[in-house]
Amino acid sequence: MERGTAAVADYLTVLTTTDTPEKAEALARGAIEARLAACAQISQPVTSVYRWEGTVETAAEWQVLFKTTAARYDELEAHIREAHDYETPEIIALPIVNGSEDYLAWVVSETTIG
Amino acid sequence: MERGTAAVADYLTVLTTTDTPEKAEALARGAIEARLAACAQISQPVTSVYRWEGTVETAAEWQVLFKTTAARYDELEAHIREAHDYETPEIIALPIVNGSEDYLAWVVSETTIG
Amino acid sequence: MERGTAAVADYLTVLTTTDTPEKAEALARGAIEARLAACAQISQPVTSVYRWEGTVETAAEWQVLFKTTAARYDELEAHIREAHDYETPEIIALPIVNGSEDYLAWVVSETTIG
Repeated sequence: MERGTAAVADYLTVLTTTDTPEKAEALARGAIEARLAACAQISQPVTSVYRWEGTVETAAEWQVLFKTTAARYDELEAHIREAHDYETPEIIALPIVNGSEDYLAWVVSETTIG
Repeated sequence: MERGTAAVADYLTVLTTTDTPEKAEALARGAIEARLAACAQISQPVTSVYRWEGTVETAAEWQVLFKTTAARYDELEAHIREAHDYETPEIIALPIVNGSEDYLAWVVSETTIG
Repeated sequence: MERGTAAVADYLTVLTTTDTPEKAEALARGAIEARLAACAQISQPVTSVYRWEGTVETAAEWQVLFKTTAARYDELEAHIREAHDYETPEIIALPIVNGSEDYLAWVVSETTIG
């Protein structure tokens, strides 16, 4: 299949995970207060599966899914890294390639300062 | 919005959220009955975090994740906007850039009329 | 990382679903043991909505969301198809277009053999 050029995505979803629902909410609130994201959704606990010192482990985590603009990504990433207590937190951005015009306009207005 | 050059993704996931599981299921069923999506997955409740009249609020919501073709996107968006009872519902599309060939063929066949 | 052209997205999230949490964990563990993904997150049960023999049905399923490199995609897909007991499992890949540099470096190191 054609591998698209999502390059020009103006809008992003950004995903991180942490190990308590309180920390997840604090990460979400901090980013929204700073207008680095328009909104976020915190999942129910997920089971994370990963390798640790040679064996595959599992742990409960909570996902935080932010909606923001590409223009705000670098500052959002810096904010999450600063606020997060993991040494190497998951922070990944996926492109939004289409959406309802008024919703995307709201994302822009929520992430614009002043 | 610049309708991205990610435009060239042939398949999409489309995400919306609503405030009861019954409305989430109605949105999913309506789109599938109309062949605007091949399938949808409804999450457990998520905690949505957003700014409302100057303060950051939280609310329980349910995510609906549709799988469809880019060709059906505009009609799916119109259907969700019509069926949804929010003034500005979240409707965002993320590109599928690879996938199992027979699954993607099933997505096409489920979203083709006649 | 190259910011941009998801055309050449170097990193992917890959989503599959199955009908028990035990099968979901087995799919996750198998892929991570084989270094086909760096990590995976298993959701709480979702309600899948789809058409079956002409009527719209619902079923409980568990999502497995893998994080990997594009270089490992074909082998990961082959592994999931082999390990999965559905005839046509959902396997879809979404591009990661940005992310924290050290997290993405960890994804590469976890999916590199030898």
